[in-house]
Amino acid sequence: MERNVKLTVAYDGTDYHGFQHQGRSDRPTIQSKLEEAIATITKSPHRIHGSGRTDAGVHALGQVVSFTTSATIPTERFVPALNSVLPQDIVVCQAEEVAVDFHARFSAKKKTYRYYLDVGPVPNVLTRRYAHFASGVLDLEKLALGAQSLVGEHDFASFQASGSSVKTTVRRLYRVDVGSLVDGLVTIEVEGNGFLYNMVRIIVGTLLQVGKGRLQPADVERILLAKDRGCAGPTAPAHGLCLLRVDY
Amino acid sequence: MERNVKLTVAYDGTDYHGFQHQGRSDRPTIQSKLEEAIATITKSPHRIHGSGRTDAGVHALGQVVSFTTSATIPTERFVPALNSVLPQDIVVCQAEEVAVDFHARFSAKKKTYRYYLDVGPVPNVLTRRYAHFASGVLDLEKLALGAQSLVGEHDFASFQASGSSVKTTVRRLYRVDVGSLVDGLVTIEVEGNGFLYNMVRIIVGTLLQVGKGRLQPADVERILLAKDRGCAGPTAPAHGLCLLRVDY
Repeated sequence: MERNVKLTVAYDGTDYHGFQHQGRSDRPTIQSKLEEAIATITKSPHRIHGSGRTDAGVHALGQVVSFTTSATIPTERFVPALNSVLPQDIVVCQAEEVAVDFHARFSAKKKTYRYYLDVGPVPNVLTRRYAHFASGVLDLEKLALGAQSLVGEHDFASFQASGSSVKTTVRRLYRVDVGSLVDGLVTIEVEGNGFLYNMVRIIVGTLLQVGKGRLQPADVERILLAKDRGCAGPTAPAHGLCLLRVDY
Repeated sequence: MERNVKLTVAYDGTDYHGFQHQGRSDRPTIQSKLEEAIATITKSPHRIHGSGRTDAGVHALGQVVSFTTSATIPTERFVPALNSVLPQDIVVCQAEEVAVDFHARFSAKKKTYRYYLDVGPVPNVLTRRYAHFASGVLDLEKLALGAQSLVGEHDFASFQASGSSVKTTVRRLYRVDVGSLVDGLVTIEVEGNGFLYNMVRIIVGTLLQVGKGRLQPADVERILLAKDRGCAGPTAPAHGLCLLRVDY
């Protein structure tokens, strides 16, 4: 009997070349490590599907993958069995049996990303693997004000890596929340029905320009309307980004 | 003219064999990296004094070191110059010129340590380098209640690594604060006028037993009175511990 299994996975992306296979064994990816672990515990090869790629250096606390299997291992054994063979920087948080038509990528309704900003006077050594050190003074109120222009359904063409090609650049963001300062860290959480390539990192890079006073909060709407990548801010570094959750 | 310089230093201790020199070049220590960096920017060897050792794997956000120098580099240049040559996991946060009789170790009046506990259902991949994963359910109220018995002046002989020899095992703790749960992390902060070898780690290991229900909050006072290391809980792992600040 084939089962469809959904795994919720967390990883520290620092030492990986992104989520997806590169076709090169000298470039470890999250996907290759997970497939190796599944093969080890089930004694047969499996191909997994992720909710989407994450770039090299990007982390996840709630990435979702799915795969079909005829292995007899009980679903509740997947978490301890996989974690016992995975490296320490990849952790399976949950395993569930799901309907046969569930697909981690095509069934996804909503994704939430979190970007960690280190706003201390010097880089924090403990959070430096997952927080981007934003040197200089940031006006968090202005940054949060600029963020609000992005909520709702918009054409995010200005916030897509140049050279990408997709059918439509219209996406809906349900929230762009700037958290309060805790222990030198500020988080920006972005929840939406879909994301263009590098979209969250370009949003954060643009909001940082607002926080630094190089752009005004009202400029964010102007940038949206321009539908031109050249108008938005730089792409914020990968290592500050984390895929927080995927909703189905 | 000789100056006495005080540096406030942060480090991720994961990849170091503790703060203090080991007399072996194949075992990098925080002290050896700092002395190398100071030698590089001043072009002469210097010996630094730390406020105290930290064990292998222990971190710091506010370790203090001092050294005398006849180098002409202005005090305010030490921070950028040292950080430009130090590895990324050691950061100098502040440099000040201090009185000639200041000594990082002997002038210290108070130290504060923070212990990070990861109380999630599975280990958090992002905080795993500096938070100890405490598996199983923890009763944080009981843990905090047990912690209060430790505040004040006590003989902490039960909370000292066996085999240590010091003149007196009496120390004063000003506070032992159990923080509230934030994003799966709980912190225990311990502030005192001095600490015995492994004292904070044994305190945390004992409080974890209280949180897990293997000891009652009232047992902490009984353990103090016993003056016997064998009565306290196990030594919590080094990587959860961080030297937060030293007061003078």
